[in-house]
Amino acid sequence: MLIAPPFMLTTGPVPAYPSVRQALGGPLVYDGNPVFQAFYAGLVDKLGHVMRLTNKPVILQGDALLGLEAAAASLIGPDDPVLTLASGVYGQGFGVWSKRYGAEVLELTVPFDEAIAPELLSARLQARPDIRVVTVCHHDTPSGTLNPVAEIGRIVRAHGAYLIVDAVSSFGGMDVHPEAVFADIFVASAAKCLGAPPGLTLLGVSERAWAKIKANPTAPRQSFLSLLDWEQAWRPDRPFPVTPSLADINALDAALDRHLAEGAEAVWARHAATAAAARAGLKALGLALWPKSEAIAAPTATVFRVPEGIVDTALRERVLNTFGVLLSLGRGATAGRVLRIAHMGVTAQPLLAIAAVTAIGAALRSLGRVVDVGAGVEAALAALEHRQT
Amino acid sequence: MLIAPPFMLTTGPVPAYPSVRQALGGPLVYDGNPVFQAFYAGLVDKLGHVMRLTNKPVILQGDALLGLEAAAASLIGPDDPVLTLASGVYGQGFGVWSKRYGAEVLELTVPFDEAIAPELLSARLQARPDIRVVTVCHHDTPSGTLNPVAEIGRIVRAHGAYLIVDAVSSFGGMDVHPEAVFADIFVASAAKCLGAPPGLTLLGVSERAWAKIKANPTAPRQSFLSLLDWEQAWRPDRPFPVTPSLADINALDAALDRHLAEGAEAVWARHAATAAAARAGLKALGLALWPKSEAIAAPTATVFRVPEGIVDTALRERVLNTFGVLLSLGRGATAGRVLRIAHMGVTAQPLLAIAAVTAIGAALRSLGRVVDVGAGVEAALAALEHRQT
Amino acid sequence: MLIAPPFMLTTGPVPAYPSVRQALGGPLVYDGNPVFQAFYAGLVDKLGHVMRLTNKPVILQGDALLGLEAAAASLIGPDDPVLTLASGVYGQGFGVWSKRYGAEVLELTVPFDEAIAPELLSARLQARPDIRVVTVCHHDTPSGTLNPVAEIGRIVRAHGAYLIVDAVSSFGGMDVHPEAVFADIFVASAAKCLGAPPGLTLLGVSERAWAKIKANPTAPRQSFLSLLDWEQAWRPDRPFPVTPSLADINALDAALDRHLAEGAEAVWARHAATAAAARAGLKALGLALWPKSEAIAAPTATVFRVPEGIVDTALRERVLNTFGVLLSLGRGATAGRVLRIAHMGVTAQPLLAIAAVTAIGAALRSLGRVVDVGAGVEAALAALEHRQT
Amino acid sequence: MLIAPPFMLTTGPVPAYPSVRQALGGPLVYDGNPVFQAFYAGLVDKLGHVMRLTNKPVILQGDALLGLEAAAASLIGPDDPVLTLASGVYGQGFGVWSKRYGAEVLELTVPFDEAIAPELLSARLQARPDIRVVTVCHHDTPSGTLNPVAEIGRIVRAHGAYLIVDAVSSFGGMDVHPEAVFADIFVASAAKCLGAPPGLTLLGVSERAWAKIKANPTAPRQSFLSLLDWEQAWRPDRPFPVTPSLADINALDAALDRHLAEGAEAVWARHAATAAAARAGLKALGLALWPKSEAIAAPTATVFRVPEGIVDTALRERVLNTFGVLLSLGRGATAGRVLRIAHMGVTAQPLLAIAAVTAIGAALRSLGRVVDVGAGVEAALAALEHRQT
Repeated sequence: MLIAPPFMLTTGPVPAYPSVRQALGGPLVYDGNPVFQAFYAGLVDKLGHVMRLTNKPVILQGDALLGLEAAAASLIGPDDPVLTLASGVYGQGFGVWSKRYGAEVLELTVPFDEAIAPELLSARLQARPDIRVVTVCHHDTPSGTLNPVAEIGRIVRAHGAYLIVDAVSSFGGMDVHPEAVFADIFVASAAKCLGAPPGLTLLGVSERAWAKIKANPTAPRQSFLSLLDWEQAWRPDRPFPVTPSLADINALDAALDRHLAEGAEAVWARHAATAAAARAGLKALGLALWPKSEAIAAPTATVFRVPEGIVDTALRERVLNTFGVLLSLGRGATAGRVLRIAHMGVTAQPLLAIAAVTAIGAALRSLGRVVDVGAGVEAALAALEHRQT
Repeated sequence: MLIAPPFMLTTGPVPAYPSVRQALGGPLVYDGNPVFQAFYAGLVDKLGHVMRLTNKPVILQGDALLGLEAAAASLIGPDDPVLTLASGVYGQGFGVWSKRYGAEVLELTVPFDEAIAPELLSARLQARPDIRVVTVCHHDTPSGTLNPVAEIGRIVRAHGAYLIVDAVSSFGGMDVHPEAVFADIFVASAAKCLGAPPGLTLLGVSERAWAKIKANPTAPRQSFLSLLDWEQAWRPDRPFPVTPSLADINALDAALDRHLAEGAEAVWARHAATAAAARAGLKALGLALWPKSEAIAAPTATVFRVPEGIVDTALRERVLNTFGVLLSLGRGATAGRVLRIAHMGVTAQPLLAIAAVTAIGAALRSLGRVVDVGAGVEAALAALEHRQT
Repeated sequence: MLIAPPFMLTTGPVPAYPSVRQALGGPLVYDGNPVFQAFYAGLVDKLGHVMRLTNKPVILQGDALLGLEAAAASLIGPDDPVLTLASGVYGQGFGVWSKRYGAEVLELTVPFDEAIAPELLSARLQARPDIRVVTVCHHDTPSGTLNPVAEIGRIVRAHGAYLIVDAVSSFGGMDVHPEAVFADIFVASAAKCLGAPPGLTLLGVSERAWAKIKANPTAPRQSFLSLLDWEQAWRPDRPFPVTPSLADINALDAALDRHLAEGAEAVWARHAATAAAARAGLKALGLALWPKSEAIAAPTATVFRVPEGIVDTALRERVLNTFGVLLSLGRGATAGRVLRIAHMGVTAQPLLAIAAVTAIGAALRSLGRVVDVGAGVEAALAALEHRQT
Repeated sequence: MLIAPPFMLTTGPVPAYPSVRQALGGPLVYDGNPVFQAFYAGLVDKLGHVMRLTNKPVILQGDALLGLEAAAASLIGPDDPVLTLASGVYGQGFGVWSKRYGAEVLELTVPFDEAIAPELLSARLQARPDIRVVTVCHHDTPSGTLNPVAEIGRIVRAHGAYLIVDAVSSFGGMDVHPEAVFADIFVASAAKCLGAPPGLTLLGVSERAWAKIKANPTAPRQSFLSLLDWEQAWRPDRPFPVTPSLADINALDAALDRHLAEGAEAVWARHAATAAAARAGLKALGLALWPKSEAIAAPTATVFRVPEGIVDTALRERVLNTFGVLLSLGRGATAGRVLRIAHMGVTAQPLLAIAAVTAIGAALRSLGRVVDVGAGVEAALAALEHRQT
């Protein structure tokens, strides 16, 4: 029997909200049934409302990596020079697809504990006016850092290029939306801050992106990777290109309802407060955050450096075995150097962040470090109080 | 609120078995958690047992079309002449991918109410000894017909070519397994006869197919379409190439447990009896089956011709609105000409087939036809009794 | 693992509606939490609306027998002569409690395949003007017969006596409500036609009944059997007398929502059509209904006589083992003589009744009888068609 | 929509374990179906195993108060002098039923923050050798105190009297079992430490108790309050006296499975560690525990005094609104004077206790008190560490 740890604070998948979990047991209705088609059309509109789109979003039937690959395959043409903004493992990793589908891949890299400076982007675009597509990861989860996507989007749009934004682990947990950041393709997930299970990608596609995709002869068609196949999937008179993942669709619907019932602003505030408590608490434990500045630390995951002399997996296991708290390891450049606490969906609860601080502090002590756990908790509380006043 | 019709007898998705539906509400455990990795390794073995494989199966994180496309993309190399066996809409449709990935596509076509005759295949292979890949659909659902895949497999293997078998809507509901039919890639679904929701493809890949795929430079790698990425996904020491669709994974596990608890042979007998009742009943109503001979009619779906002068959608709506029975329409060449009753998973119940016969008969009568519904029911019962004795 | 038969057509418990089943997995919220108290107050109002009450209903935390016993214990005082109307096993059985709590128990009995004639009641009340409480079972499930409760209620009210109505297996499936039948205590169940699981009794109590109960020194107080304890349980400022059965409460809420969404009249029509089909079908099989006249046959269960020479349990097992249909046996006076098909909640589907007729006919034949199953199905269809025109 | 607070640490009902919640959506199988009867017989044996009984336990179809009332009504005869041991609100409250069913009720009272001293009991029994029934509450939840039931049981048995033990909020969370404490009726709950929803009472009844009950003319028979009706309810050849509450039965089965899978000793250790952390943490916050000595503090709930000058409901609301932690208020003699943190079932997690300490400390501070929250957390951690070494 599969049992989840009591406190699963991983950067995704995250535990489902209770109402989402209930929705997973809902009816699996034949996708050719008009009842389902009407439901799906309504779901697309509901999602469009949550994404604050003026056109229809696309739901792809696979977890976020499908959407990211589909975005690259669809938007990037064989003649396109692509600029990959790389402030972290995920942002840089997108280059794999850029290389596969584009003509040439340029990379603007900053250290993985920093964010892309907009002026660097402007300079690079000026130097290479032929750049047609820019890609950026909003919240680079292995680093826990945010890029200034709205500024980036404004620059790219002014340049006349197209922008792909990976907002997988930020959307839903903070104030970021496709059109507000001038994204041409904006890739979000059902399985992070919305609190649904992994299995669906949520995409916003601008009208100019649709036009470019349609003109792109290599854009996937009749393929699981296709965006085009799904452009009008909401139309009740059309068969679905692929049988939708019905249980996941039911879950997404419930997740959106829940999000709207709590209110986006309240959800964001809850995520932000949780992260603030985590950062303050960890620092008071004497731990260093991975992001160079708190100004770029994400509200949806807190990444801290594992102290010298301690092995990341040892600390993680100690926290798990002693307190039932499961953390995420680093990845790529941050592997072995950090641990990560997610604040996404149901785990975005300030008291859970404080509990994580408590558990991490106690585990460090049991590994031989001198740590003032009480100070960590007090600092986290102070950070919360500060927010409320 | 989404509500399923009382009797959803569609060719897929099908209603989940009760224990599967319960499993959907199970814990979503982080895929990097050793607990989950051990669970997944066990699941792969359980699936291998159900598929009667001597090596490990692959689970792809998308509904069956993903697996079919991935099979073509992986196995078919740019120099490969491919022979598509086309006895129906799905078998023929596979050619889209063969064309995309292969050097040349040949098609062996028979009328869509017939099956591929093995001797035709032999002749074609003799004529074109360079054919390297053959593709076949076992149960071509739009026609409700079966191809003799074991004989086909033997011929292809003897020829030295590779065989891709689409067993999406037959596997689990009848005695068909990858190695028994000499399949190199065998594509099955969680969402048909196993009674889980759509969202996962289940694949058997022969060792010689793995060798060919590895040698194929165009086989997808680092892609949602990749088989290679997943070859060793069961290894607890490796991260998953893509976050698994956890709710669907939980459901698959429960579906396999249920299948094993009832016993494969009992499950197959239940499907076969249901189809036999449906065929006998429909014929006694004066309806013609679509398959030219009952010997090639599938045990997992019964396809019948809509009588002259009646519109398929009108009959389907009448059956739905009067009795709550939802049937599938035809597709492609059979669109407008047939209706289809699925017998898959929880709907493979002889009494449900008789209820469908009753509803179809009564609906035809209400549309002005002279129909002996009682005779239909009696014939269905006789067919069942015949099987038991 | 507990598995339900495919077609569970028993007179209760009945399979839960899908949305009810989902609600069972809902949050168990502390009953002292204002959030729960507000929810409960809303639930009581919703139930009052469904019961068409002008005052608040009572929900007791146990299946219907609790409510029936509580009604007797509360309303019947030690000086009260009680008249038990006995047209069946359940109506007569109520006398056990009348005897326990009242001064004297009179019984008005009719054969158990008939209904109480109002004029008999009038005569009896005239003969014994001191009768203070009358008890009646609306749908005496072991017989499948209805009593004319509205007329009975009018007579009892005119007489100045109090009436207890057992509407456990009729309420929700037909047009019967406490105030419309002049009931002083009206006992209904969550677990029959509303389609929730067993565990709660739903009671309507008239204001005059409350007055009598309060004046009754032997009415249970501080007891699981108490109605008085629950009179104001909906008040958010009061603790619950007993911790509510939270999962069952969640289910009831969903069951009421579902009932209201379909619409009471539509629900009743569905039940009535199902029963009409069952009756016509069984008769055409050559079976005799237990109720002397169809005018008194309940829309929520069809009871038929097992033919001479056939053992009830043998027929029931044959139907179950061959077709997966589970029927109820008789009870008390009808035990061994009848079988019963329920039409309650999710099982109130005309096609299910026809399927039951089919299965029963085929089973009789396999037990050696000459039965025209086709005629049974045709007659059931004719009955349905007749209703629609 | 009903939503539970994020951290529901109330003394019951408690949140269901995940597998229990899933089981609630399981099949509702007709109680007259042999499949269900066999399942029920197995459930009774499983429960007997968990209760470490040498005879069969009884499951009553209502929450714990039903079982307590039924125990009194069944075991206490009209000639029996009854001794009520009253060390708390619940123990004393049992006297209501003793008075109702017995000849005379004696009370042995100690202050409600103390436990019954065995020597006091011995003295009382010596003074009144005619005492036939003694009642005791093991964990008097409003006080959070334990009585020494094993010693009490030995004395009562030696005296020749009968003992009723209310173990509702201790059984499952610590090492207490009917036969080990010489209980004649031992009343436990599905809804506390086992982590199932409220709706069932679990009773152990000694053979000598059964004999006394059978000899008691006033013991309920044919009643919802009857134990006798249920003595042999596990026998597959008998109809159930009352339709079982099927969803709750499914949940209980899953709760017992879970309990056995974790192992009783591990479950108890988890509860004990959680309580130890809570006690240490609260004391370090400067709060006083309600129990006079920690030796009698229960491992399943920690009760602390609300400081002078603070209103209990104000503190509770602050904790709830700021941190999402729901605590229980006091009851009866402790109402207004204490707050209570439950450690039962899924909430018996040491880190949850520390989180509660954190939240309570921070709330007190926000209400104007000088509190060292860090010290509270450190003390709780120290208590945990101490247990592990």
